[in-house]
Amino acid sequence: MARIEAFCDGVFAIAITLLVLEIRVPTQELVAAEGLWRALGRSWPSYAAYVLSFAIIGIMWANHRNIFRYIGRSNHTFVILNVALLLCTAFLPFPTAVLARYLLSATERTAAAVFYGGTLTVTAVVYNALWRYAAAGRRLLRADADQQLVDAVTREYFFGPVLYLAATLVAFLSVWVSLGIHAFLAGLFVVPNHSRP
Amino acid sequence: MARIEAFCDGVFAIAITLLVLEIRVPTQELVAAEGLWRALGRSWPSYAAYVLSFAIIGIMWANHRNIFRYIGRSNHTFVILNVALLLCTAFLPFPTAVLARYLLSATERTAAAVFYGGTLTVTAVVYNALWRYAAAGRRLLRADADQQLVDAVTREYFFGPVLYLAATLVAFLSVWVSLGIHAFLAGLFVVPNHSRP
Amino acid sequence: MARIEAFCDGVFAIAITLLVLEIRVPTQELVAAEGLWRALGRSWPSYAAYVLSFAIIGIMWANHRNIFRYIGRSNHTFVILNVALLLCTAFLPFPTAVLARYLLSATERTAAAVFYGGTLTVTAVVYNALWRYAAAGRRLLRADADQQLVDAVTREYFFGPVLYLAATLVAFLSVWVSLGIHAFLAGLFVVPNHSRP
Amino acid sequence: MARIEAFCDGVFAIAITLLVLEIRVPTQELVAAEGLWRALGRSWPSYAAYVLSFAIIGIMWANHRNIFRYIGRSNHTFVILNVALLLCTAFLPFPTAVLARYLLSATERTAAAVFYGGTLTVTAVVYNALWRYAAAGRRLLRADADQQLVDAVTREYFFGPVLYLAATLVAFLSVWVSLGIHAFLAGLFVVPNHSRP
Repeated sequence: MARIEAFCDGVFAIAITLLVLEIRVPTQELVAAEGLWRALGRSWPSYAAYVLSFAIIGIMWANHRNIFRYIGRSNHTFVILNVALLLCTAFLPFPTAVLARYLLSATERTAAAVFYGGTLTVTAVVYNALWRYAAAGRRLLRADADQQLVDAVTREYFFGPVLYLAATLVAFLSVWVSLGIHAFLAGLFVVPNHSRP
Repeated sequence: MARIEAFCDGVFAIAITLLVLEIRVPTQELVAAEGLWRALGRSWPSYAAYVLSFAIIGIMWANHRNIFRYIGRSNHTFVILNVALLLCTAFLPFPTAVLARYLLSATERTAAAVFYGGTLTVTAVVYNALWRYAAAGRRLLRADADQQLVDAVTREYFFGPVLYLAATLVAFLSVWVSLGIHAFLAGLFVVPNHSRP
Repeated sequence: MARIEAFCDGVFAIAITLLVLEIRVPTQELVAAEGLWRALGRSWPSYAAYVLSFAIIGIMWANHRNIFRYIGRSNHTFVILNVALLLCTAFLPFPTAVLARYLLSATERTAAAVFYGGTLTVTAVVYNALWRYAAAGRRLLRADADQQLVDAVTREYFFGPVLYLAATLVAFLSVWVSLGIHAFLAGLFVVPNHSRP
Repeated sequence: MARIEAFCDGVFAIAITLLVLEIRVPTQELVAAEGLWRALGRSWPSYAAYVLSFAIIGIMWANHRNIFRYIGRSNHTFVILNVALLLCTAFLPFPTAVLARYLLSATERTAAAVFYGGTLTVTAVVYNALWRYAAAGRRLLRADADQQLVDAVTREYFFGPVLYLAATLVAFLSVWVSLGIHAFLAGLFVVPNHSRP
């Protein structure tokens, strides 16, 4: 278990930190034309996308840490599912960069937001698969894992893909509402509850 | 042993996460010409290469974790062999990027696939050297490591370089078949067996 | 606690190492015109910004390690505060790059230095929030944490945002004095004292 | 000690893995002109610089691991010295990239090799400072650290800066001999001896 945690922590930490590489220093042409302050201000979609994706990967890591408190052993399939989860998570800097680059384009922002939300939806599905594989019939759970708390996690995780999918579909109507839902879902996580005391 | 594992986990985690940096955000010229969806679609070799290399590095990490369960101590030569393995693994993002960039070029894709497969072949050879050095005469094995399982790993690992070399040579005939073999070998790993329960 | 430390260590380590990516290899045109030595010399703002930000992130990590010696348990809010701290820290390579790029521009260097100092000020505020949340009423402290040492840390940390804000405001008068204060504050940390023996 | 090791391992692992980012995928113009094989072949200075710097950082990590077996406690100054060592190590990808880019330029390769060797010399000086600070009067050593082994490490480390400086100065006469010495010094480390059994 220790090396699975260490490897996952490593990938989460790197993916979350790589997000900053997508924020570009303003070019000298732009700065010469409008000054550095305005040029920095123009990058606000990059800052917003950085904060949103940072929060989402941070939440994924915090959730991973939470559920691993219930998990007592691993097997080969569980390792594979973890690698699949990391594959989705480590991919997120790319849709984040696409979203930041095309958020201000009236014709392209829908595609960018759907691509972003779609990646989150797939990630949430894999997260559910990982947890359900471990929790089904208490396959990999610790003997002392409280079944009520385990069931609470299962119920809560079920809503992840549903809400992400809903937010993704809403992007076809309004990108801003869709991103607002993503931000709201991330913000919701700040509130403690029984499964994350 | 703890620091060798931590360092290797770190390099595996970083190499696997850096793969996403090779996927480029579509340029504004391309997006203006065809729209973001089609522009994103054109990058499919990058996505495919990302998934394939992610799976391969993930498998290398999982195998590393597996064999370290049998290994109880280290020495200087073993450290050197680990660094050599990491040198190969950390290099993989480069042939991955070359493959993604030139997969759609009818004249260059063979070279790209041979370069990619050749890197994997060398990596598999180093992996064998690492394992055989540790397992030969039980040099670095734990006292409780089951010799039958150890022998099973040795037999299984022997096929790594052979199959990677075969897939590499096949690229001279057909790049698609060669990459299909790579994907099949990665997929094969998903199946649990005795040496990875 | 172990995974919070591991994740934070990971993000600190990555953010500090990514700083080097902002130092660009001199272009062949520049080198052809003036030779490699002079071209390398022209990048001195990049080296200076690298050293300053490396020192500052290094200090943040060392402080994180120091205060975690007093902290014995965590809760959900503490995890959130840690993620917020990492969000600020992982952002620092961007203002560092902006500062390095525009430090030699007489018209833009003030904005670059204010942006840099502003990021540090916000980071210091979050750092205070993190510590005060843990220390208030000994909420998350270890039973054996000496209250006098805890109070000393609280007092010392209070000056962080104040001094960073002062250095940031000084940049409107003189960028060089502002950066001198940042360097002095980093240098001050080299001296051991009671809260970092 | 655990977090110092974890943080250092992290920075070593990231710096060593970032080296691959300096190897550029051949441009389509170059490949169109000469084919992918020749274009890949033209990048041989990048591959050579990758292998050399990977070996050198790998050796730094292995040495760090070796000396930490003798070190039993830390203090603030020791933490600062570790951060200084990491500052040098994390910088190495930059001179590596400069060397790879300008190795084939008859007029600029001397500057590139001196810059590279100079960085290694400074790093070796900091490494000596770190070790000597810990070992002087057994300040931070474990009670069971064998003084003869400790003295052997001290003697061996003394030659690091001297040899790196010599190799750096030789670059003014011949870049190839200078790099040959660097490669030889790295190769020498492969041989086990008393201080690295």
